[in-house]
Amino acid sequence: MKAVAAGLCDAMLVDISHDVPPGSVSGGAYLLWSVAPACPGGTVHCAVVDPGVGTERAALAVASGGQVFVGPDNGLLIPAARRVGAPVAYRLTEPAFWRDPVSATFHGRDVFAPTAAHLAAGTPLSAVGDPATTYVDLTFPTGRRSGDALHGEVLWVDGFGNLVTSIPGSLLEALPAGGDVVVEAASAVLRAKVARTFGDVGVGDGAVIVGSDGVVEVVINQGSAAAHLGVAPGAGLRIGRG
Amino acid sequence: MKAVAAGLCDAMLVDISHDVPPGSVSGGAYLLWSVAPACPGGTVHCAVVDPGVGTERAALAVASGGQVFVGPDNGLLIPAARRVGAPVAYRLTEPAFWRDPVSATFHGRDVFAPTAAHLAAGTPLSAVGDPATTYVDLTFPTGRRSGDALHGEVLWVDGFGNLVTSIPGSLLEALPAGGDVVVEAASAVLRAKVARTFGDVGVGDGAVIVGSDGVVEVVINQGSAAAHLGVAPGAGLRIGRG
Amino acid sequence: MKAVAAGLCDAMLVDISHDVPPGSVSGGAYLLWSVAPACPGGTVHCAVVDPGVGTERAALAVASGGQVFVGPDNGLLIPAARRVGAPVAYRLTEPAFWRDPVSATFHGRDVFAPTAAHLAAGTPLSAVGDPATTYVDLTFPTGRRSGDALHGEVLWVDGFGNLVTSIPGSLLEALPAGGDVVVEAASAVLRAKVARTFGDVGVGDGAVIVGSDGVVEVVINQGSAAAHLGVAPGAGLRIGRG
Repeated sequence: MKAVAAGLCDAMLVDISHDVPPGSVSGGAYLLWSVAPACPGGTVHCAVVDPGVGTERAALAVASGGQVFVGPDNGLLIPAARRVGAPVAYRLTEPAFWRDPVSATFHGRDVFAPTAAHLAAGTPLSAVGDPATTYVDLTFPTGRRSGDALHGEVLWVDGFGNLVTSIPGSLLEALPAGGDVVVEAASAVLRAKVARTFGDVGVGDGAVIVGSDGVVEVVINQGSAAAHLGVAPGAGLRIGRG
Repeated sequence: MKAVAAGLCDAMLVDISHDVPPGSVSGGAYLLWSVAPACPGGTVHCAVVDPGVGTERAALAVASGGQVFVGPDNGLLIPAARRVGAPVAYRLTEPAFWRDPVSATFHGRDVFAPTAAHLAAGTPLSAVGDPATTYVDLTFPTGRRSGDALHGEVLWVDGFGNLVTSIPGSLLEALPAGGDVVVEAASAVLRAKVARTFGDVGVGDGAVIVGSDGVVEVVINQGSAAAHLGVAPGAGLRIGRG
Repeated sequence: MKAVAAGLCDAMLVDISHDVPPGSVSGGAYLLWSVAPACPGGTVHCAVVDPGVGTERAALAVASGGQVFVGPDNGLLIPAARRVGAPVAYRLTEPAFWRDPVSATFHGRDVFAPTAAHLAAGTPLSAVGDPATTYVDLTFPTGRRSGDALHGEVLWVDGFGNLVTSIPGSLLEALPAGGDVVVEAASAVLRAKVARTFGDVGVGDGAVIVGSDGVVEVVINQGSAAAHLGVAPGAGLRIGRG
């Protein structure tokens, strides 16, 4: 994909992540949503988590907030596009901007990378496709407060084993700052403190914090909350008073 | 390696892969062969899978099809160079283009990266070495048809567990499109369908397809054929009617 | 981090490693020390191994030998800075060069990357902070010779399982070139030869060499010395006559 892009534009190529679990559209959508606000205007994202490659699923380029997101029409691009502005989607229809022939199994190399590179080189969106009247949407679940407890699910497990949850950071105010809480997963429990950052608790101790994406994270200082709780993305969590 | 190169040229540095198993010359050769046709003219590849580093094995720069391949003389570069044109090899002999001193164990940093960077900056091939009259060759095995069955071996296992085989895609015509086949490895069997892409079969089901390199791939839709069959590169496969 | 930097400067972004074990300041310090001498003048390093993020630990920019090292004040930057010159440290105090707001848990994105990018774009060090009169130091242990044996510890385990030790390469002269030695760890032993490079011993055999950083490495040709000896960074080693 990078070889193809490098032959078509002079843009700086930046790898965001190759750690999305195979086929995890929601995991890829989370990472793209996480990084988009930090990107400068003019950024063209090429994102490929594409279990439907080669089937009838469409290919999209979505403009929003001065950035463009290119990838499959399976929801992957939408949360990020919505986070940075008002998405305007085009369905890729113009093979002149693709590799020839297009393989049935690697549209990243054959469709998305060359289209993204042409867009980065100045080709207008209207040249690569037609306005998309509909597309597959994806919305993250939203955690909620119920009495004194917060309920949500794991959106992402980062490389440290920290759990990024669906619970908005603002809801953490329902729990006493510095207070003891219990994080309950299906088959394990983590005792933790409501804290600002990792170092507010001892090494190996649990904390519940507002992370760098503005949502609640469940962490263990210099440890892995994911391993302790035995959870993966999609798992439900309850955070209550300790 | 990238630090050294960045100090000697202004070329865009593109990482292709760091996932070649340690010491796997054939694995590295496959990846280079896979990516080379997608690269623009002028690309200088620096490829290092080099178990013989520091011994008498030579160092090469191989020009072919407007690209240059720099690395050890152990076969790593040759399939890719042959795929994009008619290889012309030079044996690296000119220490003026190396780091000083050259370590005995890291020619990637000390010989290959600086030579590749000088070539990317415009130094002619004839300046960095002498024409190589011989070099270590490497050819991939070629699968074959025998009666109604296809026989080949695993060239590469990608990050999804898909098996890239040595069987030319054209041979798949011997099997009925959409038909049932059985893929037999040494100690396991996968029932699969002859298909175009992953989504042509159900989630968790096997398929035999012509992959993005034009050779037969054995896959499981959203699963790992490598794990199911218990195979690694080099393993033999037989694909017969189901 | 790269998105933020790309929006503030035109510098080439080069990933050195994402393989530092979580929280391993000494591991990160080793990698930075290893790569710094290969970097061209003007390089701005942004290094983040930061278990104290969001606490009172300071943030630094350290100039040395024509390079600049940006990261947390926990020792991470100092061995590299000392290796390439005479370090002059600044404590980052100027929020105008940070993202706003600064999260409590991701100073890589919010403080270090934007500061490094501004420095790469030409902002002088004196603009981003104040001279640091003190900072957290970190020095690697130094192996020693005792009689005919060498004693040291493992500084780093590379991706092949080679053990980079704290023993200066010059001390290897105490052992006979080509001779048999025994490498003793806490719970296992490796019989090895004093050699120049991997290929000087048979496949699967042990060797003790002076590695590409000038220190003694314990390796197995096309194998993993780390797995054989069951050691990780910090483990003690004794290398004696076989």
